[in-house]
Amino acid sequence: VSQKIGIIGAGNVGGVLGTRWAKSGHTVVFGSRKPESEEIKILVSGAGATASNGTIAQAVSASDVLLLSTPWPAAEEALKSAGDLSGKILIDATNPVRPQLDGLLLGNMTSGGEQVAAWAPEAKVVKAFNTVGNNVMANPEFSAGKVAMFYCGDDAEAKRTVASLIGELGFDPLDAGPLTQARLLEPFALLWISLALKYGYSREIAFEFLRR
Amino acid sequence: VSQKIGIIGAGNVGGVLGTRWAKSGHTVVFGSRKPESEEIKILVSGAGATASNGTIAQAVSASDVLLLSTPWPAAEEALKSAGDLSGKILIDATNPVRPQLDGLLLGNMTSGGEQVAAWAPEAKVVKAFNTVGNNVMANPEFSAGKVAMFYCGDDAEAKRTVASLIGELGFDPLDAGPLTQARLLEPFALLWISLALKYGYSREIAFEFLRR
Repeated sequence: VSQKIGIIGAGNVGGVLGTRWAKSGHTVVFGSRKPESEEIKILVSGAGATASNGTIAQAVSASDVLLLSTPWPAAEEALKSAGDLSGKILIDATNPVRPQLDGLLLGNMTSGGEQVAAWAPEAKVVKAFNTVGNNVMANPEFSAGKVAMFYCGDDAEAKRTVASLIGELGFDPLDAGPLTQARLLEPFALLWISLALKYGYSREIAFEFLRR
Repeated sequence: VSQKIGIIGAGNVGGVLGTRWAKSGHTVVFGSRKPESEEIKILVSGAGATASNGTIAQAVSASDVLLLSTPWPAAEEALKSAGDLSGKILIDATNPVRPQLDGLLLGNMTSGGEQVAAWAPEAKVVKAFNTVGNNVMANPEFSAGKVAMFYCGDDAEAKRTVASLIGELGFDPLDAGPLTQARLLEPFALLWISLALKYGYSREIAFEFLRR
């Protein structure tokens, strides 16, 4: 199914995912605070005919599925400038990671995903795309196996849509349950982030989910 | 290298690991509040000639490497009854999981692993064996790949010892950094636990760590 996808924050993560989705035929609007910047124009040009640029509000109003891929400190303001989010699917790919990578800014009794849902109460929030690096999003091929991609949320139909978007990018879509599970997916994200950036592993790492 | 291993809490996790270690030639003391119980005697009998039973204090004093595998609510008392822990390697396989499996009892600004280290300041605490089910500990074979086993701690030599114990059981030993990383390994554990027990996956699941 071809989707109308709005990218909120067209940086490393939003740029890669929006480009890959546009190239596979989805209509993608890269939303940015600076939609006329050279960087955004190059991004749109590389993503092909079904991609365009706009403000965050334009990306939102044109789309049914939104990807929140700002840095965490910019997420609240981006959502406040987004306009009407009623009924939109909002994929939260952010992580409220402390600058020193030594913890999360929000405790285990809540999560960035739940905070996002509180900021955007009309939207159908699904936490996803927050647990692998943007390099793995760009190319999820590992010879040893398929990369796991967890998602969680409280709206079953929204989750089915997100699962499909995950699957077509070559990931193994895994339903982790309700949005409160973001409390676990966010530390899981920090695990690979800290391994890659602090503890001597490269960014070329990921997880496969094994079953038997 | 053959180790002297003391099990603190010979339940599902401690029973499986202690038995596997004993069968591969390590000297294992299953420490329990009820060392003469029928359950413990059957465990020792099944584990072979290098296994024995004792109080927790006896298991500790006879061993260089300790496995803390009590339920979380019993961990503090078990450690208080353990006697002198000076210089011992203490593998913390516990998870401070809330009874409803909807979060952790300790926030991301701390962890069970760090709490354990505060209770046992003389010991070299390594968080490990807390991220897979005891069924996977019993048999880590998955046709699709090797099961990841993270460990973290602040003592390099203790971590090397634990890594070796992990590796010989057929897991992929992965150094996740200092003990504060338990803040991530504990939510990671709750992820598989909640998938297995609440969200429709079976217990026959695990993660492989992919590199390229």
